[in-house]
Amino acid sequence: MLSAPRPGSVVVIGTGLIGTSIALALRKHEVEVWLSDRDPAAAAMAAELGAGRLLTLGALAGQPADIAVLAVPPGAVAGALAEAQRSGLARCYTDAASVKQLPLEQARQAGCDLASFVPSHPMSGRERSGPSAAQADLFAGRAWVICPAPETAPECVDAVTGLALACDAQPVTMPAQEHDQVVALISHAPHLVAAAMAAQCGLAPAAALALAGPGLRDVTRIAAGDPDLWAEILTANASAVSQVLVAVADRLATAAGDLAAVAAGEQDAAKGLAAVLTAGQAGAEAIPGKRGGPAPHYAVVQVVIGDRPGELAGIFAAAGAAGINVEDIRIEHTPGLEVGIAELSVRPERARELSAALSAAGWPVASPS
Amino acid sequence: MLSAPRPGSVVVIGTGLIGTSIALALRKHEVEVWLSDRDPAAAAMAAELGAGRLLTLGALAGQPADIAVLAVPPGAVAGALAEAQRSGLARCYTDAASVKQLPLEQARQAGCDLASFVPSHPMSGRERSGPSAAQADLFAGRAWVICPAPETAPECVDAVTGLALACDAQPVTMPAQEHDQVVALISHAPHLVAAAMAAQCGLAPAAALALAGPGLRDVTRIAAGDPDLWAEILTANASAVSQVLVAVADRLATAAGDLAAVAAGEQDAAKGLAAVLTAGQAGAEAIPGKRGGPAPHYAVVQVVIGDRPGELAGIFAAAGAAGINVEDIRIEHTPGLEVGIAELSVRPERARELSAALSAAGWPVASPS
Repeated sequence: MLSAPRPGSVVVIGTGLIGTSIALALRKHEVEVWLSDRDPAAAAMAAELGAGRLLTLGALAGQPADIAVLAVPPGAVAGALAEAQRSGLARCYTDAASVKQLPLEQARQAGCDLASFVPSHPMSGRERSGPSAAQADLFAGRAWVICPAPETAPECVDAVTGLALACDAQPVTMPAQEHDQVVALISHAPHLVAAAMAAQCGLAPAAALALAGPGLRDVTRIAAGDPDLWAEILTANASAVSQVLVAVADRLATAAGDLAAVAAGEQDAAKGLAAVLTAGQAGAEAIPGKRGGPAPHYAVVQVVIGDRPGELAGIFAAAGAAGINVEDIRIEHTPGLEVGIAELSVRPERARELSAALSAAGWPVASPS
Repeated sequence: MLSAPRPGSVVVIGTGLIGTSIALALRKHEVEVWLSDRDPAAAAMAAELGAGRLLTLGALAGQPADIAVLAVPPGAVAGALAEAQRSGLARCYTDAASVKQLPLEQARQAGCDLASFVPSHPMSGRERSGPSAAQADLFAGRAWVICPAPETAPECVDAVTGLALACDAQPVTMPAQEHDQVVALISHAPHLVAAAMAAQCGLAPAAALALAGPGLRDVTRIAAGDPDLWAEILTANASAVSQVLVAVADRLATAAGDLAAVAAGEQDAAKGLAAVLTAGQAGAEAIPGKRGGPAPHYAVVQVVIGDRPGELAGIFAAAGAAGINVEDIRIEHTPGLEVGIAELSVRPERARELSAALSAAGWPVASPS
């Protein structure tokens, strides 16, 4: 296990979702946190949320902080770094941008001190933005990728590792180029794929969309994110994202062509379709589930629940009384009905027992499958 | 409200996920259900699960059932209908295929009696298949689309409406062509979009996929479905799906081109990108949330939970004691940690109260945002 030191004092430049969440996480450990934002109202709101104190002139009294976090959009990192270094704000600097090559390259061009700069990326986010969306546990259990440049001083890598650990994140080290290729595949391109599908749905009448099930909602959910921020992220990682999108668009165009041929009577054209579906199934299964390995095969027990306070409490109390741990829960509310369905995931060998316990307590339960 | 009669007796031909789930739902109302499948083991398993009795020669004793449900793949509906009608199995017939024009057209060509055939589509499913995946409440609260042909007898439309209601589904009537266009957009094309993205991820090393967050998992989840079944569904709705895919592939190819231009130094190319992101955000917001309208803006309270029995029970008990209804819950387990985060959705005006109640009971809670 890493034993990097927890920082004693941190300056957060940029009090949006990410900066304020980092600050809130640090405040839980009573790290001294100073807050600054181009928009004074954003910094003030973060301070009111308990994220730290406003960074005013002379606040540091000539004592540089252990770390300054530049939680600004990718294209603004180099400028913020240069300014912070001129002021001698901190001993070590890091950013939190979701691309890593561009800020580093721009910092190099701007003549920044690269020894004290550790490019990093806490891999978490939300569809909402701004300090009011911040959460102290936004990074808990998530990867925090650290991309040291050849010039980076080891003691600053240690300091940023300590920052990540203080936010309950898992530090992962890799070169900036590798990081950018990975996030193009697992985050940036999927965002555009979701956006393209959602944009197509936006053309449909509401009555058609009313028939949509959880599948479509899942596919399109991330497209709800801030378009301006995402445009900046995507353009900052343009080359890598473009390559992934070309490949995905090709697969879809080929599938569309195969289907058009099928519609025209060429039944053989369906073979290509089977190939992309099979590869898609394998890919979906290769993406780790919530516990970090392939999704464990829990048994699901379905319970019909009413829209009343205490309903879920009763279910969990019954499960707890039977000594059964509910590993996961998903609630599906049904349009126009006063009831919903709770899907409780439990270890397969406990499913029948849970069913029986809930049935005995009066809930309508579907047979575990 | 509709007052269609509940069927007294139903024959289910095809005891896979859909047929067995319909049978289980009907058995809850003590409808007499007869089961048949090309694979006798599948029918026997459905019978063992309590879905009804095996349909044997002479079982109906010359008395046709009220409805026969042909829960077979799209291309097999017409053949199954012709055979069932020759045997005089039922007074009314319906299918459950996720495309509606093809089976109707094939039934017409096969010379079936179209007066007694009501094409329909219960709009639910799972990534798993077979009778063992069946659930009595699979259709609860979901739309059950009914597509009468010009020839369809009104009393059979009523009978199938009663079948849908007996399964707790919501009957929705529309022409077959409209149904096929709608499902191409909201179900069939999204499946291929998810598959194309997942297939691309399948080429990446496991270490890259290990960094994936819930966004990628959501985008690709439905791609885990059975490739053979989906190939048949997609080819049966080939023309409509092809049209949607062409449009989505075009958006992605255009975005890829814009990004390649940005990478080559043309910053103006980012404008097109902003357009698809903005349209995607609007589309995602137009897709109804779990309650059938635009997703209500609940406040989310995050609680760190341990991996112990009774943990969730305690949280719900505390919420219930404070008289607060938890509207939704999402649990995020974190790789490598013994803790997870439960996101509790509550009405915004109750969020601080819930936070306070949980904090007082000793749980680490993030400030409601």
